[in-house]
Amino acid sequence: MTPQRLLIDTDPGIDDAMALLLALDAPELAVVALTTVFGNAPTATTTQNALALVEMAMRRDVVVARGAEGPLVRPALESAWQFHGRNGLGEVDLGPPRGEAIAQRAAPFLVERIMAEAAGRLVLLALGPLTNLALALRIEPRIAERVARVVVMGGAVNRAGNASAAAEANTRNDPEAAQIVFDAPWPVTLVGLDVTQQTLFTDEQMAWLAALGGAQSTFLHAAHRYYLDAYRRNKALDGFHIHDASALLYLLDPDLFVTRPLHVEVERHSPIHFGMTVADWRYSPAQPPNVEVCVDVQAEPLMRALKKRLARLK
Amino acid sequence: MTPQRLLIDTDPGIDDAMALLLALDAPELAVVALTTVFGNAPTATTTQNALALVEMAMRRDVVVARGAEGPLVRPALESAWQFHGRNGLGEVDLGPPRGEAIAQRAAPFLVERIMAEAAGRLVLLALGPLTNLALALRIEPRIAERVARVVVMGGAVNRAGNASAAAEANTRNDPEAAQIVFDAPWPVTLVGLDVTQQTLFTDEQMAWLAALGGAQSTFLHAAHRYYLDAYRRNKALDGFHIHDASALLYLLDPDLFVTRPLHVEVERHSPIHFGMTVADWRYSPAQPPNVEVCVDVQAEPLMRALKKRLARLK
Amino acid sequence: MTPQRLLIDTDPGIDDAMALLLALDAPELAVVALTTVFGNAPTATTTQNALALVEMAMRRDVVVARGAEGPLVRPALESAWQFHGRNGLGEVDLGPPRGEAIAQRAAPFLVERIMAEAAGRLVLLALGPLTNLALALRIEPRIAERVARVVVMGGAVNRAGNASAAAEANTRNDPEAAQIVFDAPWPVTLVGLDVTQQTLFTDEQMAWLAALGGAQSTFLHAAHRYYLDAYRRNKALDGFHIHDASALLYLLDPDLFVTRPLHVEVERHSPIHFGMTVADWRYSPAQPPNVEVCVDVQAEPLMRALKKRLARLK
Amino acid sequence: MTPQRLLIDTDPGIDDAMALLLALDAPELAVVALTTVFGNAPTATTTQNALALVEMAMRRDVVVARGAEGPLVRPALESAWQFHGRNGLGEVDLGPPRGEAIAQRAAPFLVERIMAEAAGRLVLLALGPLTNLALALRIEPRIAERVARVVVMGGAVNRAGNASAAAEANTRNDPEAAQIVFDAPWPVTLVGLDVTQQTLFTDEQMAWLAALGGAQSTFLHAAHRYYLDAYRRNKALDGFHIHDASALLYLLDPDLFVTRPLHVEVERHSPIHFGMTVADWRYSPAQPPNVEVCVDVQAEPLMRALKKRLARLK
Repeated sequence: MTPQRLLIDTDPGIDDAMALLLALDAPELAVVALTTVFGNAPTATTTQNALALVEMAMRRDVVVARGAEGPLVRPALESAWQFHGRNGLGEVDLGPPRGEAIAQRAAPFLVERIMAEAAGRLVLLALGPLTNLALALRIEPRIAERVARVVVMGGAVNRAGNASAAAEANTRNDPEAAQIVFDAPWPVTLVGLDVTQQTLFTDEQMAWLAALGGAQSTFLHAAHRYYLDAYRRNKALDGFHIHDASALLYLLDPDLFVTRPLHVEVERHSPIHFGMTVADWRYSPAQPPNVEVCVDVQAEPLMRALKKRLARLK
Repeated sequence: MTPQRLLIDTDPGIDDAMALLLALDAPELAVVALTTVFGNAPTATTTQNALALVEMAMRRDVVVARGAEGPLVRPALESAWQFHGRNGLGEVDLGPPRGEAIAQRAAPFLVERIMAEAAGRLVLLALGPLTNLALALRIEPRIAERVARVVVMGGAVNRAGNASAAAEANTRNDPEAAQIVFDAPWPVTLVGLDVTQQTLFTDEQMAWLAALGGAQSTFLHAAHRYYLDAYRRNKALDGFHIHDASALLYLLDPDLFVTRPLHVEVERHSPIHFGMTVADWRYSPAQPPNVEVCVDVQAEPLMRALKKRLARLK
Repeated sequence: MTPQRLLIDTDPGIDDAMALLLALDAPELAVVALTTVFGNAPTATTTQNALALVEMAMRRDVVVARGAEGPLVRPALESAWQFHGRNGLGEVDLGPPRGEAIAQRAAPFLVERIMAEAAGRLVLLALGPLTNLALALRIEPRIAERVARVVVMGGAVNRAGNASAAAEANTRNDPEAAQIVFDAPWPVTLVGLDVTQQTLFTDEQMAWLAALGGAQSTFLHAAHRYYLDAYRRNKALDGFHIHDASALLYLLDPDLFVTRPLHVEVERHSPIHFGMTVADWRYSPAQPPNVEVCVDVQAEPLMRALKKRLARLK
Repeated sequence: MTPQRLLIDTDPGIDDAMALLLALDAPELAVVALTTVFGNAPTATTTQNALALVEMAMRRDVVVARGAEGPLVRPALESAWQFHGRNGLGEVDLGPPRGEAIAQRAAPFLVERIMAEAAGRLVLLALGPLTNLALALRIEPRIAERVARVVVMGGAVNRAGNASAAAEANTRNDPEAAQIVFDAPWPVTLVGLDVTQQTLFTDEQMAWLAALGGAQSTFLHAAHRYYLDAYRRNKALDGFHIHDASALLYLLDPDLFVTRPLHVEVERHSPIHFGMTVADWRYSPAQPPNVEVCVDVQAEPLMRALKKRLARLK
């Protein structure tokens, strides 16, 4: 079977790091490029991290394009350094990458890359704020016709937010971009807190991860220790949720998830609730579905699948 | 035991009618007045209905004061005639009431009435948009110190809306008023869709209600037939939810409900999601609780309690 | 000629004080009551000042009703103490008034007072934020039919703001209230910065005022010295504009003003430009006029009229 | 003297056509490219028109890059076909252009072109909504350091709007883009209604234009007849204002204009006043200037300069 061609837009970020290493290792996937964005850390940092991660995965063939430094139209919020550390990787120092991002910025790169692919062949996996994808759609709306699917980690349609009472961090970081991506005529799957918060990676799993002993798993363990401490401190949880890796696992094993087509509107006008993703659950919704939303997940099989993938890492 | 002094702000309304007749009949309660508001029907209509209902309950001693004809600051939405009929009572014609509303309008009446009561003696039960209460607070903020509790039917903190994808009808009808009432320094209990949608009054219960044979229960059955048809048509449900009567039952039997102190913010800026009630469920909420929210209910005991009350009606 | 019956809503305030003393002295006017509001100082202060001013004018027959303590629906802004002093009268201490405000609050008082007047007999002069008038309209919309005219000091349709880059202080203090008052079916005349900033009361006029030697003019001089200092400091102007007294002079001598019927919309959604009054000046405006706007004034005759009135004060 | 290198972003548009033909003819200017945008007509149309105009000017060397089809984040408004005709050129049919727009879209083209220029050498002239420039800034913020100046036709800081009561058409068509362009760290000059409405091109000047007899002037006369009719019909004016050509003339002869550095905020939150450009005229503005605004113009010398340029056209 030909591997699925995949382009990942990402803001690494501790949980992005796990998803990226798993994606680069997955035999079912052919990662064609990474584009970077602000979010878990500033873009200069997430770009360095993306480069370091492809090098750790021995995949210097994977192009990295540096992307947006802030939201489409609003002032940037504070980065999520409390969860990801000042360096975006839980203060684990990977040293400077040897490679460099390409000269072209993420949004024009996305346009060129997508227009160069055969229609329906490329999948996009978006793990951060959706600014790059929205910019690309504004530059060239026809990209929407050529992408097979956009899988987005973001939102919460039946849950409270995490970055605010109402909103998940990625959609809150750029609500206008999220709405543009949701409304474009390409298939979007939303992997949000409704499913990502159903899987808790605890001390027990962390001990298992540490024991694997590979370079990548050892790095992931070290970074996620910082992450777990932040969860304990800020959420009183003895574990962390599986956000970005859940979106990757949706790609690899969609049967683990229950999805439902819904109309999702991203709140963009409220100074308080901006970034909230409101689904119309009513019997007669006011508008047709624009997004396929993951509304449930088999948490234990997902954890098993995750551990199987982690165990493969060098 | 002295009956609890109770003032009811209401927009009858089919489900208001049930709550009002039960309240006027309840031996534990001394209903001191009704104030009317727009919502399920225009204020002229809800006022006539309130008068007709106190007369049906043989309680012409209960003063009715006519209140706000529209929201505090925004244009009125369409009334809920699809659920309540053009006359607000499911097209059941009660004929013109013999009595009249007092000359004083609801908001100044509320101020005078509340300031005349001993502190902590009066409970307010609000079954419609919160415009009258908000106006009263703006006229005389000190009323907040004299009221024992405000029990509000409205909102949804963990559920989708009913009047829009995001918002419950009462808070959507006047979001600014709801926020004012929630933030005033009086104890507020919110009885919202989270609990009211857990009780479904079905054909079976309707048959039981019809069989009671009293004048009031026969009227309630007739009016709720219209209501049930609307639920079938608009929600594909074979029954209707118990909204306003649940708020009354909270007053009479609070142990049926699980409540939780939460900070609730009413969305007021979004042209789409206005009226949504967003609770801060996070471990470290950004603001202290302003409302006691009913988050769960024992649905079967509530139904039994409701039927016992209905069976008492003449 | 029968004097014009006049009710003044006011937030004294240094320039309110001038307008009030002139109004109480004007033989053409019969001031029936003052209602107070927040704005130039908190309501407790403006109410004390209103009482002190009627006493200074030997008019203890004029009822004072205490009104709103903040805007209809939004958080209060800082009071204008930099221009009016902490006591609202330029730190001139008038001592505690002997009289008291009536028990009834301003909004219900306005409703009762207006409904008791013969239709078309009473004029309202509003010198502060329009909260009381908006509350009264919401309590009893029919008051709009009974008032002859509402003359409002507020807004700026062809000028920059003073309290912000965009907005005049009174409309900025309660934009929603202003819109309600402008849109109600009563005749409204707007006396805004377009005309009030055309008259500058300078050191020369101040010297003349000081020389008059009456108790009231001496008080006005003292208070306005504080005011003039604030103008110098904040606006680099060697004089102060005639705001509230211009609105009074419109009532007494409308021929000094050029007015134009315009549709005026008060900005209520922008977190930056709220309170701005935008007139539709286009050849084909989108909506019919809701307000008669003073767009020009004969500044020198107005100054002469003002001085003639001031010279009469005891 | 070396001609000034100039890149023009435009939505032709009748008045864009005049500005473009004059720019392509001006010996002081070296037009390096045109980028197109929606506004006076849809982007497909404005791109065809831009191509036809460079061909009419015998300047097929000038690259045309097709740009944004709608605003950055909000739904598109209706195009200004009532003033510009369905084909954007007053129903004057120029036939299909022989050339084509380049494959690259305007925003990435702007980024590459600007980054390839020596710093401080290139001027941008923006005659339509600012979407392309805003997208380019979001793709690569460093372009702001390389551009000598951005001259924008748009806004009104001391005048009413034309597209709404509050807003000029270009800033109203994309308020978020306008704010991004105004706030970027490059020098921006705003040529808005404050000056463009001071010059009226009347029947008399139209007769003079018709008499010139060149191909370009004959075309401009024909297109502007449609434009003048629209002014008569919609504004009751016997002439049309000189919008886009005024911005060009600012470039060629800045001494005709009085400018002032001001902080200008584009209203983006109001559903009514969006696109309004509010300048802070106060003695102590809240923020430092972000734009150099043309606040006055010598109308007669400008008309003479305009006619001299028109007379040169072939």
